[in-house]
Amino acid sequence: MRVAYNEQMNELADLLGEMATLAGSAMETATQSLLQADLVLAEQVISDHDKITDLSAICEEKAFSLLALQAPVAGDLRSVVSGIQIVADIDRMGALALHVAKITRRRHPNHTLPEEVNGYFAEMGRIAVQLGASAREVLETRDPERAAKLREEDEAMDDLHRHLFTVLMDREWKHGVAAAVDITLLGRFYERFADHAVEVGRRVIFLVTGELPTELNTTHLPSA
Amino acid sequence: MRVAYNEQMNELADLLGEMATLAGSAMETATQSLLQADLVLAEQVISDHDKITDLSAICEEKAFSLLALQAPVAGDLRSVVSGIQIVADIDRMGALALHVAKITRRRHPNHTLPEEVNGYFAEMGRIAVQLGASAREVLETRDPERAAKLREEDEAMDDLHRHLFTVLMDREWKHGVAAAVDITLLGRFYERFADHAVEVGRRVIFLVTGELPTELNTTHLPSA
Repeated sequence: MRVAYNEQMNELADLLGEMATLAGSAMETATQSLLQADLVLAEQVISDHDKITDLSAICEEKAFSLLALQAPVAGDLRSVVSGIQIVADIDRMGALALHVAKITRRRHPNHTLPEEVNGYFAEMGRIAVQLGASAREVLETRDPERAAKLREEDEAMDDLHRHLFTVLMDREWKHGVAAAVDITLLGRFYERFADHAVEVGRRVIFLVTGELPTELNTTHLPSA
Repeated sequence: MRVAYNEQMNELADLLGEMATLAGSAMETATQSLLQADLVLAEQVISDHDKITDLSAICEEKAFSLLALQAPVAGDLRSVVSGIQIVADIDRMGALALHVAKITRRRHPNHTLPEEVNGYFAEMGRIAVQLGASAREVLETRDPERAAKLREEDEAMDDLHRHLFTVLMDREWKHGVAAAVDITLLGRFYERFADHAVEVGRRVIFLVTGELPTELNTTHLPSA
């Protein structure tokens, strides 16, 4: 029983790690498609999205059957419950990468981004991918100190997002309202992607320590 | 044991219903604050938000202790697992109402919305509040047919959201980029609020039937 149990716990952890990898890779490809107005890459993210959704369902079923058949307690129970919550976060990360790809596809063959803000999204994309990799690492190592660092990594994303708003709100903005609307949504997608990665870290901290750090609330609103 | 167990299950269900009520009422007040540029109402939503966060934590603890002490199976296990997922959705609904209030506060004493789009947000607010009430009803009745109807209610929100984009993208838009950025974010907050309510319905369907309806994916991107 115990052997089967450990095996199932490991499988669940591996699947979560795999999901985090897929979500990070989706955001990487989506960002490339956005920056290069590359329809093939956008389509790839869109058609690959089912893999993440399928893994989500598999993880939920696995967690459920672990609870039903093994009735874990204490730390093991925390692992499974956290697993259920982490699935939802990573699933959402995948959906946000999908949204980026869909905006790219909708604007093709035009570029969604005016050249002026390309750099912001290249950097937001880089940080998002890094946060995806960190989330995966934290899921593997279960190191609460490493998990807490995701919040620091997210600060760079927050700074970029805040700065992006000041660019949009500037009187010198000459790319029109339609581009501003796209950029506002895109900025939000990257910010939320990062927030969910941080949330994975927060859940891993709970899983290991039994203490849940205070909730993240870093949504930025334009201040100008 | 069984009596204590039923009592705890009922408590969890009641707390989820209470959370849904608070989230709906937060969105109602936030919408009023937005439409009237009313700082007092905005501050009320912001200061009341802790109640939702606190209830979230209480629900999670209760679900966890149910799993740890009662090791439920089958339908009961589904109830508790769904409860954990529903908490996250309602928590997020509260956070989205909070964002609306924060934009209102940031723009005060100015109105965030140009008169031209007031009607959209009055209607989106109305639908959001209705979806919050429906989510609560579904949590109480556990009626899967009623739960499936949340998706239909959400269609009106989707239509409004889509139409709002066409207003923003119109060449006749004369309220500038800053207003368009605010409206884009606000539209997204209402849309996501509705999505989470639909998701609650989807989870209730799973809880009752053991079958999870296909995932919602109605995010709208501007098409103009």
